[in-house]
Amino acid sequence: MAIVVQKFGGSSVANAEKINRVAGIIADKYSEGNDVVVVLSAQGDTTDDLIEKAHEINKNPSRREMDMLLSTGEQMSIALCAMALERMGLPVISLTGWQIGMYTNSDYSNARIKRIRGDRIMKELDKHRIVLVAGFQGVNKFDDITTLGRGGSDTTAVAIAAMLHADLCQIYTDVDGVYTTDPRQVKGARKLEEISYDEMLELASMGAQVLHNRSVELAKKYNVELEVLSSYERKPGTIVREVVKVEKTKVGGIAKDTNVARIAVVGLEDEPGMAFKLFRVVAKENINVDIILQSIGRHNTKDISFTTSRSDVDRAVKAIEAAKDTLRFEHIDVATDVAKVSLVGLGIMSSVGTASLMFEVLYNAKVNINMINTSEIKVSVLVDEKDAERTVQALHEAFFEDEG
Amino acid sequence: MAIVVQKFGGSSVANAEKINRVAGIIADKYSEGNDVVVVLSAQGDTTDDLIEKAHEINKNPSRREMDMLLSTGEQMSIALCAMALERMGLPVISLTGWQIGMYTNSDYSNARIKRIRGDRIMKELDKHRIVLVAGFQGVNKFDDITTLGRGGSDTTAVAIAAMLHADLCQIYTDVDGVYTTDPRQVKGARKLEEISYDEMLELASMGAQVLHNRSVELAKKYNVELEVLSSYERKPGTIVREVVKVEKTKVGGIAKDTNVARIAVVGLEDEPGMAFKLFRVVAKENINVDIILQSIGRHNTKDISFTTSRSDVDRAVKAIEAAKDTLRFEHIDVATDVAKVSLVGLGIMSSVGTASLMFEVLYNAKVNINMINTSEIKVSVLVDEKDAERTVQALHEAFFEDEG
Repeated sequence: MAIVVQKFGGSSVANAEKINRVAGIIADKYSEGNDVVVVLSAQGDTTDDLIEKAHEINKNPSRREMDMLLSTGEQMSIALCAMALERMGLPVISLTGWQIGMYTNSDYSNARIKRIRGDRIMKELDKHRIVLVAGFQGVNKFDDITTLGRGGSDTTAVAIAAMLHADLCQIYTDVDGVYTTDPRQVKGARKLEEISYDEMLELASMGAQVLHNRSVELAKKYNVELEVLSSYERKPGTIVREVVKVEKTKVGGIAKDTNVARIAVVGLEDEPGMAFKLFRVVAKENINVDIILQSIGRHNTKDISFTTSRSDVDRAVKAIEAAKDTLRFEHIDVATDVAKVSLVGLGIMSSVGTASLMFEVLYNAKVNINMINTSEIKVSVLVDEKDAERTVQALHEAFFEDEG
Repeated sequence: MAIVVQKFGGSSVANAEKINRVAGIIADKYSEGNDVVVVLSAQGDTTDDLIEKAHEINKNPSRREMDMLLSTGEQMSIALCAMALERMGLPVISLTGWQIGMYTNSDYSNARIKRIRGDRIMKELDKHRIVLVAGFQGVNKFDDITTLGRGGSDTTAVAIAAMLHADLCQIYTDVDGVYTTDPRQVKGARKLEEISYDEMLELASMGAQVLHNRSVELAKKYNVELEVLSSYERKPGTIVREVVKVEKTKVGGIAKDTNVARIAVVGLEDEPGMAFKLFRVVAKENINVDIILQSIGRHNTKDISFTTSRSDVDRAVKAIEAAKDTLRFEHIDVATDVAKVSLVGLGIMSSVGTASLMFEVLYNAKVNINMINTSEIKVSVLVDEKDAERTVQALHEAFFEDEG
């Protein structure tokens, strides 16, 4: 017998039929003798529909009232799912964020969890009830309803698992686990049995939209064992935990991110502080910068290139142009037809030859590398967008498929 | 400056346009310098849609989970209406049942209000905010959400008005007041300026569906002055209060109820206790009885007739037939093509000649009276359904139209 927290996303509970399937999964876990707490998101498009309703009335409503409105979505889900379990004859109770004492700060629409009171959930588990909890929502010290922002229900599940010292926190999605790369695009993509928190974080930020970073960070902090699995297929998913088995250290994955653009500021004067001045201008616009590369230019100048998301390019360029008097550069070069491909793996950079094998693979695949960036557990390259898929395929073959 | 509680029903907030109109009414009251608390129902068909969603999953869900589900409807209304007031630049806050401390018993789906904590509403009024409260809902001592059953939002409004010692509780509906009889059916129907609680109670129970009885009873108990008025027309409605002006004692109304059937138990033995035995059988089935009439039958027997709602007729007849051995009657006579017409008015029965005028009017109109029932403030007659409208018209002409 164990304590298990399960989380089902909006598409898993989108209609009566899907709710019944989810109830079946919950019932199985409960019937095995486990204490089961389930976190649910709002059904399918409910949240979008509510936002549309709000905007019909006010294009710019207060975030406090928006949270009041949106939190109804999850409340509907838990009530409906409770009814499905009742029909199966199982003891069940649904609880909202405020009912479980999910206390957050007052940053409406993007609140951070401060603590969970927990007594209500534990009392219900003691009564051997299945406990359904509304995800994404909490309450601040004024008793006002808050929501947790993107990935909020994942975060709710992990926070409850941490509070209960749960044995496992299962995140049900529409994919059956974490893959070495996107299985829809690369034929040989392999599902991982295990992955570390850090690798998962790198993959998530690389665009592998399985788990939201906030929830993975929280799981790492409280050492909550996660399992990413499918609500459509009854089979084990991918376990995310701190230490993966030694013989599997060379697991990891490949991620592709096409929401990326490169901005090159060419012909900056080669004097101290230029990088500082440039990125201060960019930071003032609240623009996130990813890879940065500085190179020597011609005639005693230097070039600084950096990547950012495509939606920020125009604002970045405008801000830099406006500071031309201070920065004194020749011109700006923008490329939006690029993509970032990352090889992620715990210990992958410490194993000799990884980077050189990677570059060899890309050379053989005739892929031109624009930029390179490395960290402890990842190597990213910026390539032309047209080469991106070929890059993923080639790296996957070289690094993962010979292992099988 | 006064404290005013306003209540708007589901049809008044059915869509964005209607919410904006409601917001306009609220804004006017607030701009006059009043403290304004507004109770809202769920939008239009929201509650029915939610019930349908529930029944798709479980035909017989627990009432606890049903309340969890349905209470989201009012929460959406208050958030959306708050957004409309925000757009007008007014200070506003929406609050759910649990946030205002609306404590009820645990009779889910039909809970009774026990007390209102009130501190939150008062704090918000002190900040000069318009306070929007979700109607129909409360919370029990376990912190579980309850709903108040039919007419629940009216009851919420009156209870808050009582707690705040409000100067006025305005119930906005789709009619512009209380009429002497149904204005859709009787041409000369006249809107009342004032009506007493007791008269309102008689009219409500007679089928004039303007205010729910529970809310009127509560208003009478705590002496809350009510105003029934239209959310579509900006003009005064009907005031409901304990003592109406002396010169207006002869106000009142005429109500018609067609959800009525007459059951006659013919040929009961004329011995003590027969009425008791008969109605014990009926009461055991939880069937409400309205008018009762006992008459001498032939051959030392008596007949007892009573009225009940049409939906209860079959069960009543079955129960009485099953007790034939004890009751020893000849046969049962059932009439479902009847209607009850009631003349309601404070002091109307104490004024000499009311009843005789009524019977004269019906005689002149050639209406056959099946049963008669009188109380301090009303006279009801049971007539054939085909005569009902003619009866209402004739009584209205005789009792109200000469007054104008």
